[in-house]
Amino acid sequence: MPKPSIAIGMVGYKFMGKAHSNAYRQINQFFDLPLRTRLKTIVGRDANKVAAMAERWGWETSTDDWRRVIDDPEIRIVDICSPNNTHYEVALAALDAGKIVACEKPLAMNGAQAREMAAAARGKINTVWFNYRRVPAIAFARQLIDEGRIGRIFHFRALYLQDWTLDPSVPLLWRMDKDVAGSGVTGDLHSHIVDLSNYLAGEITAVAGTSRIFVNERSRPEGGASKVEIEDASIFVAKYADGAIGHFEATRFANGRKNGNTFEINGEHGSLYFDLEDMSRLWYFDSREPKHIQGWRKISVWEEMHPYMKQWWVPGCAIGYEHTFGNQAADLIAAVAADRPMKPDFDDGLRCQLVLDAVLEACESDRWVTVVKQ
Amino acid sequence: MPKPSIAIGMVGYKFMGKAHSNAYRQINQFFDLPLRTRLKTIVGRDANKVAAMAERWGWETSTDDWRRVIDDPEIRIVDICSPNNTHYEVALAALDAGKIVACEKPLAMNGAQAREMAAAARGKINTVWFNYRRVPAIAFARQLIDEGRIGRIFHFRALYLQDWTLDPSVPLLWRMDKDVAGSGVTGDLHSHIVDLSNYLAGEITAVAGTSRIFVNERSRPEGGASKVEIEDASIFVAKYADGAIGHFEATRFANGRKNGNTFEINGEHGSLYFDLEDMSRLWYFDSREPKHIQGWRKISVWEEMHPYMKQWWVPGCAIGYEHTFGNQAADLIAAVAADRPMKPDFDDGLRCQLVLDAVLEACESDRWVTVVKQ
Amino acid sequence: MPKPSIAIGMVGYKFMGKAHSNAYRQINQFFDLPLRTRLKTIVGRDANKVAAMAERWGWETSTDDWRRVIDDPEIRIVDICSPNNTHYEVALAALDAGKIVACEKPLAMNGAQAREMAAAARGKINTVWFNYRRVPAIAFARQLIDEGRIGRIFHFRALYLQDWTLDPSVPLLWRMDKDVAGSGVTGDLHSHIVDLSNYLAGEITAVAGTSRIFVNERSRPEGGASKVEIEDASIFVAKYADGAIGHFEATRFANGRKNGNTFEINGEHGSLYFDLEDMSRLWYFDSREPKHIQGWRKISVWEEMHPYMKQWWVPGCAIGYEHTFGNQAADLIAAVAADRPMKPDFDDGLRCQLVLDAVLEACESDRWVTVVKQ
Amino acid sequence: MPKPSIAIGMVGYKFMGKAHSNAYRQINQFFDLPLRTRLKTIVGRDANKVAAMAERWGWETSTDDWRRVIDDPEIRIVDICSPNNTHYEVALAALDAGKIVACEKPLAMNGAQAREMAAAARGKINTVWFNYRRVPAIAFARQLIDEGRIGRIFHFRALYLQDWTLDPSVPLLWRMDKDVAGSGVTGDLHSHIVDLSNYLAGEITAVAGTSRIFVNERSRPEGGASKVEIEDASIFVAKYADGAIGHFEATRFANGRKNGNTFEINGEHGSLYFDLEDMSRLWYFDSREPKHIQGWRKISVWEEMHPYMKQWWVPGCAIGYEHTFGNQAADLIAAVAADRPMKPDFDDGLRCQLVLDAVLEACESDRWVTVVKQ
Repeated sequence: MPKPSIAIGMVGYKFMGKAHSNAYRQINQFFDLPLRTRLKTIVGRDANKVAAMAERWGWETSTDDWRRVIDDPEIRIVDICSPNNTHYEVALAALDAGKIVACEKPLAMNGAQAREMAAAARGKINTVWFNYRRVPAIAFARQLIDEGRIGRIFHFRALYLQDWTLDPSVPLLWRMDKDVAGSGVTGDLHSHIVDLSNYLAGEITAVAGTSRIFVNERSRPEGGASKVEIEDASIFVAKYADGAIGHFEATRFANGRKNGNTFEINGEHGSLYFDLEDMSRLWYFDSREPKHIQGWRKISVWEEMHPYMKQWWVPGCAIGYEHTFGNQAADLIAAVAADRPMKPDFDDGLRCQLVLDAVLEACESDRWVTVVKQ
Repeated sequence: MPKPSIAIGMVGYKFMGKAHSNAYRQINQFFDLPLRTRLKTIVGRDANKVAAMAERWGWETSTDDWRRVIDDPEIRIVDICSPNNTHYEVALAALDAGKIVACEKPLAMNGAQAREMAAAARGKINTVWFNYRRVPAIAFARQLIDEGRIGRIFHFRALYLQDWTLDPSVPLLWRMDKDVAGSGVTGDLHSHIVDLSNYLAGEITAVAGTSRIFVNERSRPEGGASKVEIEDASIFVAKYADGAIGHFEATRFANGRKNGNTFEINGEHGSLYFDLEDMSRLWYFDSREPKHIQGWRKISVWEEMHPYMKQWWVPGCAIGYEHTFGNQAADLIAAVAADRPMKPDFDDGLRCQLVLDAVLEACESDRWVTVVKQ
Repeated sequence: MPKPSIAIGMVGYKFMGKAHSNAYRQINQFFDLPLRTRLKTIVGRDANKVAAMAERWGWETSTDDWRRVIDDPEIRIVDICSPNNTHYEVALAALDAGKIVACEKPLAMNGAQAREMAAAARGKINTVWFNYRRVPAIAFARQLIDEGRIGRIFHFRALYLQDWTLDPSVPLLWRMDKDVAGSGVTGDLHSHIVDLSNYLAGEITAVAGTSRIFVNERSRPEGGASKVEIEDASIFVAKYADGAIGHFEATRFANGRKNGNTFEINGEHGSLYFDLEDMSRLWYFDSREPKHIQGWRKISVWEEMHPYMKQWWVPGCAIGYEHTFGNQAADLIAAVAADRPMKPDFDDGLRCQLVLDAVLEACESDRWVTVVKQ
Repeated sequence: MPKPSIAIGMVGYKFMGKAHSNAYRQINQFFDLPLRTRLKTIVGRDANKVAAMAERWGWETSTDDWRRVIDDPEIRIVDICSPNNTHYEVALAALDAGKIVACEKPLAMNGAQAREMAAAARGKINTVWFNYRRVPAIAFARQLIDEGRIGRIFHFRALYLQDWTLDPSVPLLWRMDKDVAGSGVTGDLHSHIVDLSNYLAGEITAVAGTSRIFVNERSRPEGGASKVEIEDASIFVAKYADGAIGHFEATRFANGRKNGNTFEINGEHGSLYFDLEDMSRLWYFDSREPKHIQGWRKISVWEEMHPYMKQWWVPGCAIGYEHTFGNQAADLIAAVAADRPMKPDFDDGLRCQLVLDAVLEACESDRWVTVVKQ
């Protein structure tokens, strides 16, 4: 007897569309889920391109009208991976139609939108694609904290370093277009590391920082040139509710860093270090061991008992970037099947957005800014 | 108009069956191939288990009789990923039936079998699953050598270190059963690094070495216990036709090493270093640069122009173990579509097997053994 | 014919006294200097202890009265390595007496003192013991920048992470006593990384940050307990005159980090990375190479042509912490012999102090603070 | 009251002469020894050069006649750091004169010489400069083994990789002259790693291997050219008395490796890894920890309780190459003062030499060779 299926409609079909499609496909083989995903409808602005995408990735139908997904009573999950400025409208419509919504990060263009969206989503199953929480090594970091191995946290420091816009000839893509992206590295990169801080280190209460636009004008893909209005780099210092202090840097001008998302947590009993460029590893220092054998241990997070790893291959076989989406998609389907809440949810998206709002304001005003309460 | 498809029959359905199934599925989305793979028939000894596998992975039919695959005129590719002692019979039958054969490593139980198989395969498209040649960093190593960046090679050294049988309570699985596996780490692990040496460093002419069985008796999964007859560890020194010298170590008793396949090549103009536990990286030393800035450079092999990487995600996004199979499967399908030879082929399998035969004899006899000419 | 000698008087005899004594002794053997150092007088508050130190390290005489060094016409160099609150008085007296002064960092308790000291020193040979400028890898970083390999700098980020006061039972040593040290990690650790920023990355114009005292009361070595008034940790964001932005963190609460002084510079043509815990290495990324072989290269800075290395051993032989002092001492003696200026000098000490003052004020006031012009 | 002194006479004054001189000088300051070293006489073939060396390094007298050291009743320690072919004669004479002898490695030109020397030395205090036993991380490895943290050893593997003779224009220095050096990398580099194996891993009983001369002719420093008769590279496989197996490689043709002395020990409870190019670290894997937090821990061997480190600086401050000699010199002086045996001694030198003899014969004959019993 074949498994029952759950129909998905997806708004967006480019890079994240590929990542999500792959995830929804692979989990049927790799995870033991009560429901089988059915890739029903994919939506994109360019009808021909989205049709090709549907053909390639096995979506049953494609359309250039996102409302067809909302209106389709068969579709239970609406996945939103279109550019940032579309999240608000599509998510609210989907929630209103009773859909389960899985929305890409950042949840919204700003805290005000995010607050409305979180309110609309509350009490329903929903999720934000902060996929790095599902890097096995990061889920494992959370586990070690839960096991009491770090204790009181003194410091969190996180970098997200890239270099792909350093070349001034890179055109002004949508991620650099203020109207579409809302902000630069703040929404794109800080969103990830602020969410990791929320997940692992606690509540940020105030921030001060500064940002820069290093290349002031760029050509547009469609021709012509525009003034760049979003920040290429942003650094901020943060105070936490429990007394910890931290700092965050996001930049696309760190020559030689491609996906340099690193963080370190220093606590009273130990420390953790992670680098997304070496994503199978979590470094752990335990200061309660005998002093002479203390050291940073390089844990390869690919054993059977490590989060998610049993589903994929065998110990010693690395998984990659794409599997973080599979892990999250599998958790979502399991949550839907069990009718239980899923994390991170829109409230986590809001929580992150309120920090980002404070960061943007702090950088703009050269002042310390208190993060608005959720 | 949908693409034409090519039907595959697969003999074997366990760990490698999963790896190959996943590869044949994913490449339809990630690669631009003229043919679409059709997962037609999967074969296994346990009819129920192989049926479940078929259901999960999208194989159209399953059977416990491998001859049904040979006899099916629709099936063009026969994939063999059953235990070592089955390769010979299945491959010869498939070749005889005009199939394209893709066989797991080691190609055969010994050089004599391999020689027959290679003879039968010659002139046809065929391949051996030495999948590590398709680790992007390793394919890239080959490219750097082709670019003349290493020059004359003085040394090749390779380790394949694991620790999974160190615990004496691990039962005698098929990989430790002499009748099924033929040998221990020699066929399982040395086969990989000897193939990499063949691929990257040239022809081995003579070997001397030693091997050990550290645990002499193990329980059997089906009950009872048996004397262990295959080697847990094997080390050998090698002479190359062009004057280079090297050494190879394969063991399942290297505590803390899980998939520790590392190699280093030292040449007159530079050196290369690779570690499968950090598979996105190739380390390269160039001695023709200005002396003061010489250093081992850590190249993250995930840029668009690196082998295979453009097909998967974007720069900075790691792929994993499974993608090496996808890369090889895609190359196979492309070769079939273009009716051109595919590498590594059965002759490469034979070439490797003849070295392994020499290694086994050298360890047995405590003598230097000349590798039999292909 | 023996070399002429130059007499040194040293105020301070504890940890830095040992480091400087060793440096003044070793350079006579390892460097080819026109003058031989003569360790004439060492000064300490405890007459017995300083006498033992003199006996052990070959100082001709010892005293508990630092004015004897000032008054000794034979002594040409006065080395000050006593606690921070003594630098001002001793240095001014020594300068007034026409001595060459080599003063430990931080130069002074604050910018006002440092300004007076720098004014008094101007036009004379003098130096501040920012010894990390003489780590060969760091001097080499400066060389690579001078060679134009980095280009316009976008980012500087530096950490100085330690963990030795994390344990609340560590008593309130002089480095934690506000009256003696002036500040906590700001004067002790930020001073080093701010100087490196001055040396390598340019002028800091404004800062915002925050600091913490994590342990509020500590026992005193002499008995009793005191409120802790100096900061255990401090983080700040910085703006540079040329548009770069950076951040700095100094802490003694980073569990597992012992001497974790790391910095990274990202520029338009390349990047540099250094970690004092692995001080023989400088990592260099060059974005003007062919794209496919770009990578961070790990340069072991121990070749003959690397700064200072020819004086010590042979390529491949690491030097350590102590040799940074030897390098600086040798440069000082050479400068004196040639009657030429020495760097870093009191003006560099002042420049650093003015940033530290701004950092302390910024953390105190929760405001961005403009660094006072030199 | 000043300490009593102990007079040293040293035969040899070049690179090792510098290393030993520095060691004998520094330990008076850094260690708490009952005797103060007195650098009395240094011997070299070139009277002018050795006189300059004496002047620079504080030796009281110099001479070109090594017998003056033997005949001087004040001299208690004779240090031999002249080329290999002189060790035998000088050591026997010194032992005969009742001196304490400290001889550089390899102890002798061959096992026969070494056997005589060991016999003559037995019962007296003496040592061989296998200085790497005094790298703190290696002494610490021995300690961890003694603590039972590794258990039964399965594997030892060691490399000593250099690249300084790869360039054919490097002339035939004494280390490449068969008459003076006896052998190439076998005596120079294998001697170190074989001694480490003896120290850490147990008794080698048989070896098989191969060696190469890659550059057949070299110019001589004094003019003209000669055929090269010593091996540039040598690899061998080893069997141990207790059942372990291992391999060893020594080469001067490993492009990019400068002082690449690495070893790994795999045992039933854990593993150890060391790299001389990063000599402050010992990597330790413990398989008895909870499985999910197992990992290779990077222990920085610079804490107060680590071997020798308390004598030098403070935690986090690296020492370097030269300090290994200081550690051994200090142990020697302490042994002399206490009239107790010192290790490694001439019997260790012999033990090493017998393995080297077997390696040379094995490479020469292409056979397995049994190591002669001590």
